[in-house]
Amino acid sequence: MIAVAPGLDVAPELRARLADLFGAYDEALEQGDFECWPEFFTENCFYQIIPRETYALGLPLGLLQAESRGMLADRVAALRKTTLYAPRIVRRLVGSIVLRAIEPDGMRLSASFAAFQTMLNEPSQVFLCGRLYDRVVDDDGTLRFAERICVTDATLVPISLVFPI
Amino acid sequence: MIAVAPGLDVAPELRARLADLFGAYDEALEQGDFECWPEFFTENCFYQIIPRETYALGLPLGLLQAESRGMLADRVAALRKTTLYAPRIVRRLVGSIVLRAIEPDGMRLSASFAAFQTMLNEPSQVFLCGRLYDRVVDDDGTLRFAERICVTDATLVPISLVFPI
Amino acid sequence: MIAVAPGLDVAPELRARLADLFGAYDEALEQGDFECWPEFFTENCFYQIIPRETYALGLPLGLLQAESRGMLADRVAALRKTTLYAPRIVRRLVGSIVLRAIEPDGMRLSASFAAFQTMLNEPSQVFLCGRLYDRVVDDDGTLRFAERICVTDATLVPISLVFPI
Repeated sequence: MIAVAPGLDVAPELRARLADLFGAYDEALEQGDFECWPEFFTENCFYQIIPRETYALGLPLGLLQAESRGMLADRVAALRKTTLYAPRIVRRLVGSIVLRAIEPDGMRLSASFAAFQTMLNEPSQVFLCGRLYDRVVDDDGTLRFAERICVTDATLVPISLVFPI
Repeated sequence: MIAVAPGLDVAPELRARLADLFGAYDEALEQGDFECWPEFFTENCFYQIIPRETYALGLPLGLLQAESRGMLADRVAALRKTTLYAPRIVRRLVGSIVLRAIEPDGMRLSASFAAFQTMLNEPSQVFLCGRLYDRVVDDDGTLRFAERICVTDATLVPISLVFPI
Repeated sequence: MIAVAPGLDVAPELRARLADLFGAYDEALEQGDFECWPEFFTENCFYQIIPRETYALGLPLGLLQAESRGMLADRVAALRKTTLYAPRIVRRLVGSIVLRAIEPDGMRLSASFAAFQTMLNEPSQVFLCGRLYDRVVDDDGTLRFAERICVTDATLVPISLVFPI
């Protein structure tokens, strides 16, 4: 369930809709359905993967950054062409999702995540963990991410970061 | 919360009942209450642990397979007799559960999982991760798994797989 | 969503309030807002981190124990002074939360957790996993932990246990 910050009054239906958004996002990535991935974002979205250290200092530059749905689609195209794709599986696990605030420009949510990587003929390993900071808006009746900032706990992030988080 | 795929209309009560099923299953395994484990399945269930590679190719043979509640009970009996039981603890963590479809033969759900293993006097380690593909039915008023396929990301799975996932 | 044990009849509102408590707790720790941490507990709370082995034997002594909100505040003060604080990030991931029983002295809940640790310039690693056993009470209109017992699967727990779980 989506947890709600103290003082926020949120209808059960909204909690359910938000849970469905996160669930559908997980499901799409899990199925390797990367072509659908940009559809979870608004046209003028902001997507970033940034180490905690950089984020905490307020520095703007992430390891990966996209400022529109088109740029996300470009990333998917790049991912499809990379030879790194086939031999590994990335497994994401997202913890409890908290609706922290409802602001004029959208709903602010956050959740911790861990990602595991499995190379061919090797055991699964943790390869990344951190916190997602999201801004979700109602985009003509559909909930979409206007912003997803993936703040990674590690400063050095492995190359397989080409995968969407 | 159980997330629901786009287009499915599901009553809050059903979401809650499904969450309760998954929660009770987790709780039973966590308590080491393996004798109760087969009770979560229908009489003619299908339970399988299968590597992603094999599953993706459509090959039928899993690392472990049971085709009835009785076969699950046999597995528990075997587990109780194995000398591997005592010295390790298996910890399961399940991510968000998605209700993907409601079909005539049951509800299709999936969820990612990670399992951690702790050997005596050693630190905890990831030992397995993957995705659960479930079919849940209403069995005379009780929700039960008619099918649970645990697809593991790793092809080589450690011996402690004797534990229910 | 908070899952509920078979036979318990729980209003959706209570499920939501419990989810919010766990979500707010996660969020506070995630933000490094340790000064707020004692506020999640009752004045005469019991907080303990104890290895599974010791807990299963019924032995009382944990690796860390606090028997009041004041003692938790002391821990935070100690944590703020330790030189171990800066160079590592602890990431907690909590699985599905099960409301196991409603008793005269409070609601009994449990959930599995994994914690990951990231040292400066190193990749993230699992450092602890186990199960939380909680007793939650309504403390003048606010849900609070009257008891949180963190049972760790590993017997040897790393020094970074100074962090709240």
